[in-house]
Amino acid sequence: MKVNFKKELETASRGMIMIHDPHRLIKLIVRMIVNKFELKHAAMLLFEPESDAYVLSVSRGHKSARVPQEITRLNSESPLIRLFRQKQFKDLTLERNAIVTDDLNQMIWRETIVQHTQGAKELLHKVDAQMQVLRASACVPSYYQKKLMAILLLGRKQTGEPFDQEELDFFSALASDAAMAIRNAQLFERLKKEAERNRRQFIQMIIVLSSAIEAKDSYTHGHTERVTSYALAIARQMVSNGSAKFPENFFENLYISSLLHDIGKIGVPEAILNKAGELNKEEYEIMKQHPAKGVEIVKPLNLPVECLQGIMSHHESFDGSGYPEGLKGDQIPIFAAIIAVADAFDAMTSTRPYRQSMNPHRAMEELETNSGIQFHPAVIQAMRQLYAGGKILDRF
Amino acid sequence: MKVNFKKELETASRGMIMIHDPHRLIKLIVRMIVNKFELKHAAMLLFEPESDAYVLSVSRGHKSARVPQEITRLNSESPLIRLFRQKQFKDLTLERNAIVTDDLNQMIWRETIVQHTQGAKELLHKVDAQMQVLRASACVPSYYQKKLMAILLLGRKQTGEPFDQEELDFFSALASDAAMAIRNAQLFERLKKEAERNRRQFIQMIIVLSSAIEAKDSYTHGHTERVTSYALAIARQMVSNGSAKFPENFFENLYISSLLHDIGKIGVPEAILNKAGELNKEEYEIMKQHPAKGVEIVKPLNLPVECLQGIMSHHESFDGSGYPEGLKGDQIPIFAAIIAVADAFDAMTSTRPYRQSMNPHRAMEELETNSGIQFHPAVIQAMRQLYAGGKILDRF
Repeated sequence: MKVNFKKELETASRGMIMIHDPHRLIKLIVRMIVNKFELKHAAMLLFEPESDAYVLSVSRGHKSARVPQEITRLNSESPLIRLFRQKQFKDLTLERNAIVTDDLNQMIWRETIVQHTQGAKELLHKVDAQMQVLRASACVPSYYQKKLMAILLLGRKQTGEPFDQEELDFFSALASDAAMAIRNAQLFERLKKEAERNRRQFIQMIIVLSSAIEAKDSYTHGHTERVTSYALAIARQMVSNGSAKFPENFFENLYISSLLHDIGKIGVPEAILNKAGELNKEEYEIMKQHPAKGVEIVKPLNLPVECLQGIMSHHESFDGSGYPEGLKGDQIPIFAAIIAVADAFDAMTSTRPYRQSMNPHRAMEELETNSGIQFHPAVIQAMRQLYAGGKILDRF
Repeated sequence: MKVNFKKELETASRGMIMIHDPHRLIKLIVRMIVNKFELKHAAMLLFEPESDAYVLSVSRGHKSARVPQEITRLNSESPLIRLFRQKQFKDLTLERNAIVTDDLNQMIWRETIVQHTQGAKELLHKVDAQMQVLRASACVPSYYQKKLMAILLLGRKQTGEPFDQEELDFFSALASDAAMAIRNAQLFERLKKEAERNRRQFIQMIIVLSSAIEAKDSYTHGHTERVTSYALAIARQMVSNGSAKFPENFFENLYISSLLHDIGKIGVPEAILNKAGELNKEEYEIMKQHPAKGVEIVKPLNLPVECLQGIMSHHESFDGSGYPEGLKGDQIPIFAAIIAVADAFDAMTSTRPYRQSMNPHRAMEELETNSGIQFHPAVIQAMRQLYAGGKILDRF
């Protein structure tokens, strides 16, 4: 036995806490055991609270030595689980911190003679059979707050020697640390999934809301989605042509902002949105309120300021002739400048109440003509490159 | 020295991983140290990545012995932080795993004679002064992946004896385990906050969406919010009068479902929603589509089936005469039956395009008359009790 138990245990335990992927963690533990102790194989059964069962997480070793593939879980009625979970049977394993096949005959014999536990003899016979199926020569339970969290299944040593008590104690301490680390990792994973699910629902909710705008406005089917995809493509192009550097969360915020840019139209009467002729002055004034209304609507979301800028200023013009604030040049936030171009391109290439759609080539020319007048030149440059590269023609 | 180091360390480390509140964790560690080693005080400085500073987390001990209250953080330019972080100085503390005030004179003297580290002497003088201000007789750094995660500040022992190397080694090992556990707890806390924030944003988004419906329908200001609050009150009353038992997530789902029950109206033209007279047959058919449209709209959210039932069936009638499916009695999901009553009560007590509002007493009589005909009797019973108890009259 060349293994320095204390040191191995400390090294193994120390790193475990920071591994938040339960499967990776179990793999590491099992691999360490198989290698250091030169076992034929090892595996771990891990408690799954949802099903009250123990799931086989990793089975490592030579194919012939491993736990058979058809075994994937043990339920709470399995002999091994009953042995380690039920109070009256747990005591049987207390001295050794484990159940070892080599002990079983002696344990059964003792139960036959002394018979101090009801049902123990029958259970031990079943455990014996189950351990043979699992090809385990020792099973080490691991508890956290008195709950059976995991079972370490150990195959025989390559040398054929039995496990001594010092080794079993080591496995028990390791399994106990591992159980806690695994529980920690499981909780982490669950929380992470929850955060992701909630995020996804939030984003989905934004999509629902943006499609709600389109339900009102019969001429804009798919508009929001296209503006969003153009805006993201433009931003990516600006990064790759070197004209801009954007912070990490830029793209997600641009995504949200583009989806929501017209949300204020919820507050504009359908009669104005869907009017077949040009809007009169009064109607136009109402229409021009939609950016500010949009910002008002999304206020409770506490969105990053860039998202609000995209909603508020996507009708501003580079020369200062836009609305609602008449911002000029670089006063216009880049989010808004990007959305403005994406929005204009899609509006021109779509049929609207008051006119037919323009072909994309003509629309691109129109954008170019207005570079530095209505639109930010760097945004138009990126759009031109995308268009020339054939990257925004999905719908044509 | 009565402390069994190994055992203390193992006990302390083992539990740490499952404590996911960083402050509680630090408190436990510091308390253990103060008590077991009979120190005048102890404290921990914890790395805060956002500010690249070390924040004083707990200072425990008699008032006169503690770290002075005005000290709350050390920035990366502080002498102690430089000593433990900068490679050329770290070596000074390597032998002892700590910096001890009693060593400082000797260390300074050695630097003066041998002078093998540029700037070390000046730094050690400053460290000496800083440790006096902090009332620390030893400072133990703790690293994770070579990063300085925390510093354990130790006051003098009550007995006045100095720390021996065995004790310092113990503190070092403990600090290292603690650093990892604290990091784990911090990550946990961050993830939890993220999940909560995302959830809040999702709920806020639902509220935004429901207020978007109201922006279309000029007569329903506040309707959704009131229906939601009535529905929740009814459900709580049904639980407390013993007529129903609801699962844990019932109330959150009812909340979501009530907020969204009329979402399908987004797809109904404003001309129909706001019509001053009664709807003709054709208009009514369009209006009747709003439950199914609502379910269609929220489809991408993957909401629990109960939420969808509330949206789909809140216009069903107990006698089977409702829409869209003509469900009868207990075929009508309880979510829908509750929302139906809340919805009807609010509709009757509000002014609508085609009629003035009813007073709440008259509306309650109307509900009673229709118990078992249009409405579920158990829901009406709960509503009656709430009304009699004066619990739903906030707006009158």
